[in-house]
Amino acid sequence: MTITETAAFLKTLDRVLILTHVRPDGDTVGSAAALCQALRDLGKEAYLLYNPEITATYAPYAAPYRAGEGFTPAHVVAVDVAAPGLLPENAMRYVNSVELCIDHHPSNSGYAQRTCLDASAAAAGEIVCAVIRELTPLTPAIALPLYVAIATDCGCFQYANTTANTHRIAAELMELVDVSAVNKALFRTKSKVRLAMESRMVADMELFDNDRVVVMQIPLAMRQAYNATEADVEELSSLAALVEGTDCGITLRELKPGTVKISVRSGARVDACAACAALGGGGHRAAAGATVEGTMDQAKAAILEAVAHVAEA
Amino acid sequence: MTITETAAFLKTLDRVLILTHVRPDGDTVGSAAALCQALRDLGKEAYLLYNPEITATYAPYAAPYRAGEGFTPAHVVAVDVAAPGLLPENAMRYVNSVELCIDHHPSNSGYAQRTCLDASAAAAGEIVCAVIRELTPLTPAIALPLYVAIATDCGCFQYANTTANTHRIAAELMELVDVSAVNKALFRTKSKVRLAMESRMVADMELFDNDRVVVMQIPLAMRQAYNATEADVEELSSLAALVEGTDCGITLRELKPGTVKISVRSGARVDACAACAALGGGGHRAAAGATVEGTMDQAKAAILEAVAHVAEA
Repeated sequence: MTITETAAFLKTLDRVLILTHVRPDGDTVGSAAALCQALRDLGKEAYLLYNPEITATYAPYAAPYRAGEGFTPAHVVAVDVAAPGLLPENAMRYVNSVELCIDHHPSNSGYAQRTCLDASAAAAGEIVCAVIRELTPLTPAIALPLYVAIATDCGCFQYANTTANTHRIAAELMELVDVSAVNKALFRTKSKVRLAMESRMVADMELFDNDRVVVMQIPLAMRQAYNATEADVEELSSLAALVEGTDCGITLRELKPGTVKISVRSGARVDACAACAALGGGGHRAAAGATVEGTMDQAKAAILEAVAHVAEA
Repeated sequence: MTITETAAFLKTLDRVLILTHVRPDGDTVGSAAALCQALRDLGKEAYLLYNPEITATYAPYAAPYRAGEGFTPAHVVAVDVAAPGLLPENAMRYVNSVELCIDHHPSNSGYAQRTCLDASAAAAGEIVCAVIRELTPLTPAIALPLYVAIATDCGCFQYANTTANTHRIAAELMELVDVSAVNKALFRTKSKVRLAMESRMVADMELFDNDRVVVMQIPLAMRQAYNATEADVEELSSLAALVEGTDCGITLRELKPGTVKISVRSGARVDACAACAALGGGGHRAAAGATVEGTMDQAKAAILEAVAHVAEA
């Protein structure tokens, strides 16, 4: 569906429930919150389904829109959710009734009845912004979560997905709302625990494939030793992508004994999405993930083999 | 001088030498390179005075414009140089003949015959961009160094100096040139030495003033132990500003025995510029510096006292 068709479809809805994805990031939460506020500005009832995995970082953006027990939705919309398997457990009852998905993942499975997809967008928030523009004026209450959505998914305009359009939208949003506190909190603040964990990950990092591939690990034991919160470990996978001389940063995070979340950040030589897809995951070419069963060592061996298989010489 | 007056003045010049500041950063080098290219596009002879302290990070942007032995300038222009004392030693012979300074430092001493100052600009590059627009069309050769100038001085759009205008200029430049490799190199790459030094600085950091002020140190011995290059230590002062719960990050770097470079990054409670001015330095409210004589401990005591003096309760 085009932006205009999507906006027209949303206009026909009321009593809308908006779904976000597991391990919610700024894009899914911010996009959902902005869309919810826009629908409310149109006089509609709209809520976000509570996401049980939301962290303290993003909870404040979702809180004003949280659906209560008494809300019975007439329509269900998902934002930034590429596949039904990425819905949180409490959203699974809606898995076959998602009427619209707004997304920017090229790997979107097409599970929704209608999909508004733009894989060139740095964030789902860019698409949501374009849709909202056709519905109702942008306000500070819409601009703030949209900025969070867009800025977080492009690493505050550092990642290769950032386009001129990303900057133009940011300029438009910054005319409406002061984002300096948000930038400080999201991009220029690290807890002492996080700084200590990063130091440990750097000390323990391993290099492979002629030092082009770096692997960092976050075992459960490390997390427990530092008494780290979920917010402390959020986005820790970006650290591996920083190491000079490497073009593929792999982070292995032990979610629970026997389950490992693999994150891959890659340059042009390695298709991160293809490597993760081989292990049942997905994402973008330069940033993808997969969750696998097994030990940390097994996960490491599996992803290194998958990366070697898809990498250019 | 206004942008228009500055552009009109530049049109009257030829055989122009452009000066950059000591410990050159992306803004002074990128702004100078872009201005030099624009003047050449107008058919003028223009060069950058070689800056002996330029690091490998920024040298490629200056190299195409380096003045040779045979060049005798008729006019001298400085960009991002707030005071005569910030000129490199080889530029000191021009200190009394700078005809124009384009700058964004509120502390600019007014040493040049003409000053085009906009303290609201995140980077001198924003002002240079506005001046160039009135002179000649933006080209990829101008856009790339301008992007470097602007993106480095606003921490890739993360710092509080970033405005809607900063994003609008970035959008315009990104229409002309692909900046993804630049963003990767400047903002998402850390040498192994740098990562190790950061770990060490984190392990050794000290907190003061009810844990609101953090001090990190880069003694000469540490730099020697890691065999660190100038590029390895560049911008290391941004690390102290990340520590959660603090709002004043101080970095002490021993330049040579008995000489310490102090960098301060601060939130609203502390005027970094005022604190550094008390020690003979200057800069911006949220980011300033000073170079003092003495030991690391003496420098630490001096800057902590200066910060305490200017800080709000």
